[in-house]
Amino acid sequence: MTEKSRKSNVIFRPHFKTHQSLKVGQWFRDEGINKIAVSSFSMAQFFAGDGWNDIMVAFPFNPREIDVLNRLSDKINVSILLAGNETLPLLTRKLKNTVDFYVKIDVGSKRAGYQTDSVIQIEKLLDMADMNNNLNFRGFVAHAGHFYNLKSVSQIRKEYKKYVKNLQTLKNYFTRRYPDIIISWGDTPSCTVLDKFEDVDEIRPGNFVYYDFMQLKAGICKPGDIAITVAAPVVAKYADRHEIIIYCGAIHLSKDYVIVDKKPVWGMVLSYTKDGWQFPKKPAYVKRVYQEHGIISMEHNDFFSVNVGDLAAIIPVHSCLTVSNLKNNCHFI
Amino acid sequence: MTEKSRKSNVIFRPHFKTHQSLKVGQWFRDEGINKIAVSSFSMAQFFAGDGWNDIMVAFPFNPREIDVLNRLSDKINVSILLAGNETLPLLTRKLKNTVDFYVKIDVGSKRAGYQTDSVIQIEKLLDMADMNNNLNFRGFVAHAGHFYNLKSVSQIRKEYKKYVKNLQTLKNYFTRRYPDIIISWGDTPSCTVLDKFEDVDEIRPGNFVYYDFMQLKAGICKPGDIAITVAAPVVAKYADRHEIIIYCGAIHLSKDYVIVDKKPVWGMVLSYTKDGWQFPKKPAYVKRVYQEHGIISMEHNDFFSVNVGDLAAIIPVHSCLTVSNLKNNCHFI
Repeated sequence: MTEKSRKSNVIFRPHFKTHQSLKVGQWFRDEGINKIAVSSFSMAQFFAGDGWNDIMVAFPFNPREIDVLNRLSDKINVSILLAGNETLPLLTRKLKNTVDFYVKIDVGSKRAGYQTDSVIQIEKLLDMADMNNNLNFRGFVAHAGHFYNLKSVSQIRKEYKKYVKNLQTLKNYFTRRYPDIIISWGDTPSCTVLDKFEDVDEIRPGNFVYYDFMQLKAGICKPGDIAITVAAPVVAKYADRHEIIIYCGAIHLSKDYVIVDKKPVWGMVLSYTKDGWQFPKKPAYVKRVYQEHGIISMEHNDFFSVNVGDLAAIIPVHSCLTVSNLKNNCHFI
Repeated sequence: MTEKSRKSNVIFRPHFKTHQSLKVGQWFRDEGINKIAVSSFSMAQFFAGDGWNDIMVAFPFNPREIDVLNRLSDKINVSILLAGNETLPLLTRKLKNTVDFYVKIDVGSKRAGYQTDSVIQIEKLLDMADMNNNLNFRGFVAHAGHFYNLKSVSQIRKEYKKYVKNLQTLKNYFTRRYPDIIISWGDTPSCTVLDKFEDVDEIRPGNFVYYDFMQLKAGICKPGDIAITVAAPVVAKYADRHEIIIYCGAIHLSKDYVIVDKKPVWGMVLSYTKDGWQFPKKPAYVKRVYQEHGIISMEHNDFFSVNVGDLAAIIPVHSCLTVSNLKNNCHFI
C-alpha cells in the first residue's frame, strides 16, 4: 500500500483503528509513514503517547470531547472532521489551539457528511469556520463504506470514478478560496483493487493491514493476504451433531456475519500446525455465536481431528470489530 | 427475584455477567445473596477480589485455564461446569484443591451439555470424576437459552415444565449415588414469568438486573422494568433524511438486533429529561450501526427537538453484550 501510494504520488495516512497496536504502528513508521487516522480521541491519545504527531480523528467531531481536543492539540497536530456546522459555535468559544479540519462528504454510504452538491451548506460552514483563526480548513474527507457491499471489483472501480469526479468538482470550486485543500479518500476495498489513485490526494485504508473473511468473501483479498486469526480454545465437542464448542463468541468475534450458502457465518475455521495456520480443503465455519460460546459445524473426518483443549484458528468476519473486542477481553498471541 | 426465590425455597445464585459491577454486586449482598455465577475466570477473579467466595464459572471448563482455577480455588469456593468428559484426565493430573463441579445439561438450546437421556455417558463422566478426590459432583446445570426466542409466556411455562421434568428424572436416578445433588436452572425469561420455581433447587438469572429491548419486545418485561440506557452523544443530524448520527455503534451496543416492523433495530431511543429518561409517545430506533456510528431515524417533530451535543438515551437490544462492550470502551455514568 505504501508503494502504491508513492507511485500515485498521494499521501498515505493509514487508519489505525483496525490494529490498535503500537507494534504494528511501528511497522508503518519503518516504511516512512508519519500521518495516521484513528476513530476516537482515546486512540489518538494512545498513539500520541508513542510519538505519533499527525493524527486525524476520523469521526464527526463530538462537542463533548472539546477538552480532550484542547489537551491533545497542545502537544501534537490533531485534525478533526466536521459533518455539519452545529459544532462551530462551541469550537469558536472553546478551542485553545490551532486545529486542522476536514469537511466530511457522504459518497453514497448515507452515514455522515455533506452531499457533494451541497455547495451552499458547505460554504456556510466555511464562512463560520473562517471567523475562527484557530480553525484551518484542509479539505474534504470521504469514506465509501458501502463499497464493502459491492459485488464486483469492476463495480468498485466504476463507483470510485463517479464519486471522485464529484469530489474533484467540489475541490475545484473551493480551491479558488483555499488553494491548498486536498481530497482524502478511505476504504480498503477501493484502495486494494485500484492500481493507481487518480484525482485524490490522500488515502486512508485501515482494514487491509489484516483483511478478514468479509473481504475474502467479497473477492477483495486472497486467503494468503489475511493476517489475523483468533485462537479459540475448544471446550467441548458433540459427535452426534458434529459440532465443536469454542470459547469464542460475540464478545470476541463480534456479531458481524456474512452469508455463505444462504446461511449466516461468524467466522472461518482453520487449524494451527507447526508451520502456522492452514486453510482446510473443505472449509468449516462458526455457525452460531452467543456471548462467550461459538459453535463450529464440521465434516466427519475433520471433526475427529479436533480435541478439547486444542486451539482453533478463526478468521473473523470483520477484523476491526474483533480487534476492538479482543484488545479488551483477551491476550494477543 | 430474591423474594420469589425465598418463597420457592430455592437458592438464588444471580449471574453477574450482565452487570459486571462491584456496586450492583453489593446491592445483591445487601439482600443476603452470597453465591454468584459468572462466565469467565477473569470475572471470577474480579468478584473474588471484592469478597465473593462462592462463585460458579458457568461456562464449560476450558482446560487451558487450569492454572487460574488452581490459584482461585486456593482462596475461594469456585465451581466449574463439565460439558463432556474430555477434560477429566487433565483435571485429575493438575487439580490442586477441592473443586465442586456441575454437569451441564442441554435443555433444548443445542449449545453445550449432555442430553437429559444421556445417562450412560453421564455415568461414565462421574465414574472418571470419582477417581479424583478433589472433584465434588454437586448436580446438574441447565440454561434454556432458546427461551429468548419463544413467542409467548405460556410457551415458556410449558417448555419449562417439560425440561424440568426430564431434569428431575435425571436427578432422581443419580440421587441414589449422590444424595445431595441439585438442579440449577438459568435464564431470565423463565425466572421472570414463573411465579414459583417448582422442582429446581437453584436459579441463576442474570439479565433481569437490567433487562433490555429484546426482553421488552418478547413481552418478558415492561418498560418500567428496564434499568439501563446508553448515553449516546449526538454528533450530526440531517434534516433531508430525518436521521441523527450518534457516537454509539457496534463497539458500544454490539451488533445484536431485534426485528421491529419487519426491519432490524439495534436499540430503542429515549430522551433524557431532568427527571431521568423518558419513553416517547412514538418510539424511535437505532436503524443502522457501524463500528462507532449509530443512525437514528426520527419523526419530524422529535427530529427538531434533538441537537448536536445532546445525549440520546439508547435502550440496548442485549444488555449483557452492551455492558461487556461499555465496560471496556466507555465510562458508566
